[in-house]
Amino acid sequence: MTDVLVFGSGLIGTSIGLALRDAEGFRVLVHDLDPAAQELAVARGAGEGWDGGSRVDILVAAVPPANIPGVLKEVQALCLAKTYTHVASVQSQVQREVEALGCELSSLVGSHPLAGRESSGPGAASSDLFVGRPWALCPSAASRPFAVDQVRGLVLACGATPLVVGAQAHDESVALLSHLPQVVSSALAALLDPPVRTELSGGGLADTTRLAASDPGLWTDILSANAAHVAPAVRALVTLLEDLAADLERLAPHEQVNGAQAAKARADALTGVTSLLEHGNRGRALVPVKRGVRDEAFARVAVEMDDRPGRLAALLGAAGDAGVNVEDVRVDHIPGRPRGVIELLVATEAARSLEAVLTAEGWLVRPTQ
Amino acid sequence: MTDVLVFGSGLIGTSIGLALRDAEGFRVLVHDLDPAAQELAVARGAGEGWDGGSRVDILVAAVPPANIPGVLKEVQALCLAKTYTHVASVQSQVQREVEALGCELSSLVGSHPLAGRESSGPGAASSDLFVGRPWALCPSAASRPFAVDQVRGLVLACGATPLVVGAQAHDESVALLSHLPQVVSSALAALLDPPVRTELSGGGLADTTRLAASDPGLWTDILSANAAHVAPAVRALVTLLEDLAADLERLAPHEQVNGAQAAKARADALTGVTSLLEHGNRGRALVPVKRGVRDEAFARVAVEMDDRPGRLAALLGAAGDAGVNVEDVRVDHIPGRPRGVIELLVATEAARSLEAVLTAEGWLVRPTQ
Repeated sequence: MTDVLVFGSGLIGTSIGLALRDAEGFRVLVHDLDPAAQELAVARGAGEGWDGGSRVDILVAAVPPANIPGVLKEVQALCLAKTYTHVASVQSQVQREVEALGCELSSLVGSHPLAGRESSGPGAASSDLFVGRPWALCPSAASRPFAVDQVRGLVLACGATPLVVGAQAHDESVALLSHLPQVVSSALAALLDPPVRTELSGGGLADTTRLAASDPGLWTDILSANAAHVAPAVRALVTLLEDLAADLERLAPHEQVNGAQAAKARADALTGVTSLLEHGNRGRALVPVKRGVRDEAFARVAVEMDDRPGRLAALLGAAGDAGVNVEDVRVDHIPGRPRGVIELLVATEAARSLEAVLTAEGWLVRPTQ
Repeated sequence: MTDVLVFGSGLIGTSIGLALRDAEGFRVLVHDLDPAAQELAVARGAGEGWDGGSRVDILVAAVPPANIPGVLKEVQALCLAKTYTHVASVQSQVQREVEALGCELSSLVGSHPLAGRESSGPGAASSDLFVGRPWALCPSAASRPFAVDQVRGLVLACGATPLVVGAQAHDESVALLSHLPQVVSSALAALLDPPVRTELSGGGLADTTRLAASDPGLWTDILSANAAHVAPAVRALVTLLEDLAADLERLAPHEQVNGAQAAKARADALTGVTSLLEHGNRGRALVPVKRGVRDEAFARVAVEMDDRPGRLAALLGAAGDAGVNVEDVRVDHIPGRPRGVIELLVATEAARSLEAVLTAEGWLVRPTQ
């Protein structure tokens, strides 16, 4: 039995407690300076309230990044655990600060679960928040292998995929993979002031601006803590966009003049635009789109159906009877319309047989290409 | 009965035929230079094959933008219809070209359905592609009101929301709302070359780079046709990003020096970062996230459940029995895990009563905040 003490009953801390409840071999104590937050975490089943004295195997500091060094200094002075970890979204700055504070470093392994929601607090926590998500382990040179193993065990028990990476490399990666998308999403949305007619938008704007709804206070902290890596990532993106803007300016009608030289300039500009789009295709193919898996592992099966109560339930029942795990469901219908389309995301190797089974049972499976 | 002739059996043309089949009062003929495409559109039920001579009320040129002026010139010479429309994603350039070609302008109304899929062709077409989506109508000064009314009727029959907007204003809007998100998504993805460890990414990168999978050839055409409006939109975004990069550079550790002036510079930089994020919050609130409705019209009801076959079907059945229309379903589970979470998107006014009904029936409804 591994005893875990989770300091901080926010979204991440409470979700860790809930996830370990579903795993074998863990007992969780929770603690929060805010009694209401701790009480809600306990009520949700994240663990028992900490009595203020019990010692444990692993202590998780699931508190805001600015508070992590102080909390670690304090709990280490009380010898509360054999192994300590935290969940900061930027690792280098915390590592510098715990060193400066004189924390004991051999028992400490920083970590960062790549998971979150737009809402926060213990009420938004979920036992499966980390399932299939990456979770970075960032040991320092001083971290003992035993401590790394302990934290890895906790991460696996939460259903996440542990990835060991240095603090510096971690911060550089998340600058590009998480912090830059946030910044770009906010900047895109910031251009939508009236009189822009946002009702003329499709699904692309909705997707690219989803992150723009994030909490400005939290993200100011994250971006400033990782400023040294986010700034060059923003500059790199600006360079690509400036090249593109220059190409587009060459293609705009008022710039169009005749002659062989102009035709060459126009052809070069078109090549520049296409080349960025093709480069984007290649980059997109490297992005995991569903919890740790790539695009090609899953396929969509689309079924047209009448919009009658119970039809969707019947379809999912049919898929279940066929022994196919449905990973995700997309419903495309609007109340009152006679017909809708349901897309089922299933493992690629199961897609063809599911289509055959459904077609045989009389479902209107939309042909795929 | 309104007779419609759809020229072009691609995704958009075939979807128009399928949508009008489900509406009352329309008869559709389809035509494509590629007999296989036309045959597939007819087989899918998009309409009857055109005999090469029949005249109709409305002709829809659903062909690539570059071919629209030529097709319109030709079909007008044959007097095939009383009203003509097309579906170009950039309007001004087509309008200039049809004028230059000497097309008859009073019977012509350009239009643009803001709907699409990542896949193309008649096989990907769907009767509900346009349901709840905006569809721009861009009459010229010469367009007769009768022609505008005819096209508006067709748009409404397809389930879309007609929005009348000048060609210039349309192109300016879609530059910001559709073309800029495409460009930004491609540029973000283009930065993901190895050795970047994309496995360290969460859902944010997946969302912001989804558009980067789009067809480079098609998008080179769109971006170059609207270059005059896309270029300034890219420049505006670059300005925001450069300001942010400068703020972040002031916040990076190596720039941190002591003294009152340095503290002031740091405080200003933090304010700059927060201000962009807050501006992004305000812009995001203006983005329709589900087919023509804003965030607040829908709410999510989250239910935790065991991962057993038939449970999802039973849950949807329970929602149907309660008389609640489920707009969308999100499944969060990974095969083999003991528990999953299902989120149902329902009308906000129905959410609380659905939660109560499901709880009373023994479902584990996750508390919302």
